[in-house]
Amino acid sequence: MPRVFLPHALAPQAVVRLTGETGHHYARVLRVRSGETVPVAAAGGAWLCRVCAVDPRSGEVELVAESLLPESGPVHKVFLIQALPKGDKMDVIIQKATEIGVAGVLAFAAAHSVTKLSRDRAGAKVARWQRIAAEAASQSQRDEVPSVGFAHDAAEVSAWLAARGVARVWLLDEAEAANHLGRALRQSGPCVAALAVGPEGGWSAADRALFVERFSAQPVSLGRRILRTETAGPVAVALALYEWGDLA
Amino acid sequence: MPRVFLPHALAPQAVVRLTGETGHHYARVLRVRSGETVPVAAAGGAWLCRVCAVDPRSGEVELVAESLLPESGPVHKVFLIQALPKGDKMDVIIQKATEIGVAGVLAFAAAHSVTKLSRDRAGAKVARWQRIAAEAASQSQRDEVPSVGFAHDAAEVSAWLAARGVARVWLLDEAEAANHLGRALRQSGPCVAALAVGPEGGWSAADRALFVERFSAQPVSLGRRILRTETAGPVAVALALYEWGDLA
Repeated sequence: MPRVFLPHALAPQAVVRLTGETGHHYARVLRVRSGETVPVAAAGGAWLCRVCAVDPRSGEVELVAESLLPESGPVHKVFLIQALPKGDKMDVIIQKATEIGVAGVLAFAAAHSVTKLSRDRAGAKVARWQRIAAEAASQSQRDEVPSVGFAHDAAEVSAWLAARGVARVWLLDEAEAANHLGRALRQSGPCVAALAVGPEGGWSAADRALFVERFSAQPVSLGRRILRTETAGPVAVALALYEWGDLA
Repeated sequence: MPRVFLPHALAPQAVVRLTGETGHHYARVLRVRSGETVPVAAAGGAWLCRVCAVDPRSGEVELVAESLLPESGPVHKVFLIQALPKGDKMDVIIQKATEIGVAGVLAFAAAHSVTKLSRDRAGAKVARWQRIAAEAASQSQRDEVPSVGFAHDAAEVSAWLAARGVARVWLLDEAEAANHLGRALRQSGPCVAALAVGPEGGWSAADRALFVERFSAQPVSLGRRILRTETAGPVAVALALYEWGDLA
């Protein structure tokens, strides 16, 4: 059963009413029944709640908080900076990275990004991506929904990194042969990290320089096999969380 | 530039002629030009070959082997047994697992697989999956194309595992809480391994028992977050190759 996200905290026996779109989804699409349990990720902790009433006509569900669920983590914050890929690949990247445990995703208008996204259209796109992240977080039983953003230029990347307290940026780069991501993760140890993945055509020299000089990014390799842009991000996030004990 | 796969070995200055579909692809789709290099994965090693002639009309390209490329691995064989998922998810799983470095993929008709695949139709499906694996292996610069198969029942799984010398099978299972994949990988150390991933509805009790009793599979968890079936396989293969030093 997918999780409901609540902005406020719960206490034992607290009553949760699902209405609107969420109520409709649980009452009419998932068809929950009285007596069943639904996990609810509330502020400060997730609860297993029992369904005590369902009204399929109005699309309303009433739940009662029963027991606190163990944290599903991750403890460590690993962000993904993804250069805008072609087509609808960003949707898949956000879905997969969210399931795996990414802390947040920043789409970045890289020089070699074939897809262009104007500031005007970015708002609607980000809203769509945020819905995909919420749905994936609910499905994968996460405690929190990762935040999704869009950076049009270096200043916006900079502000986004600062707001999240990112301590280290690794730039995944096909051109890097010596320094592997694994070694970098082990040498660094757990930290608030961001992994930057280039577009289909790879990083431009200017983007590479920007990340290295302005964000002190360290170029790293994922090994000799070349992963597609939509594969590299989720895999790199998985390896970082695994290396730091936050996955499997 | 994607790799060409050749069934025979190459020597320095050996001439390679690309004709047919492959020739057409390099001459007319990728539009290689004289003087450019194309990697060729031949039996016993991959070579960087230089284009010495292109005929776009007939779709023929002539290459000369120049220098041996370093092995792109992986050294360790990690197979994926994937319960048939819904829709065309198997295509994506095979593509992603191949990029990451899977040694081979076996699609398995699990009890809870919604998609059913008769023996009659399996041949065409496997041929399609094998083409996807070849294309992904070429794109990701692998030395070999992973083999793809389909098992209708336990006997066919058994024969497939035996033919590949699989020493250990791990069953990824949401119901397993104590034993994590990471711990199992570290305890075992590198071996010829297969990771089995269930369908959307999870493993049936009978399939779970089959794997545990007949294939001595060890149930393992990927952690508290629940990955979709199409995410779990590629991620598990990535973690196994990473743990054993074969990725990043």
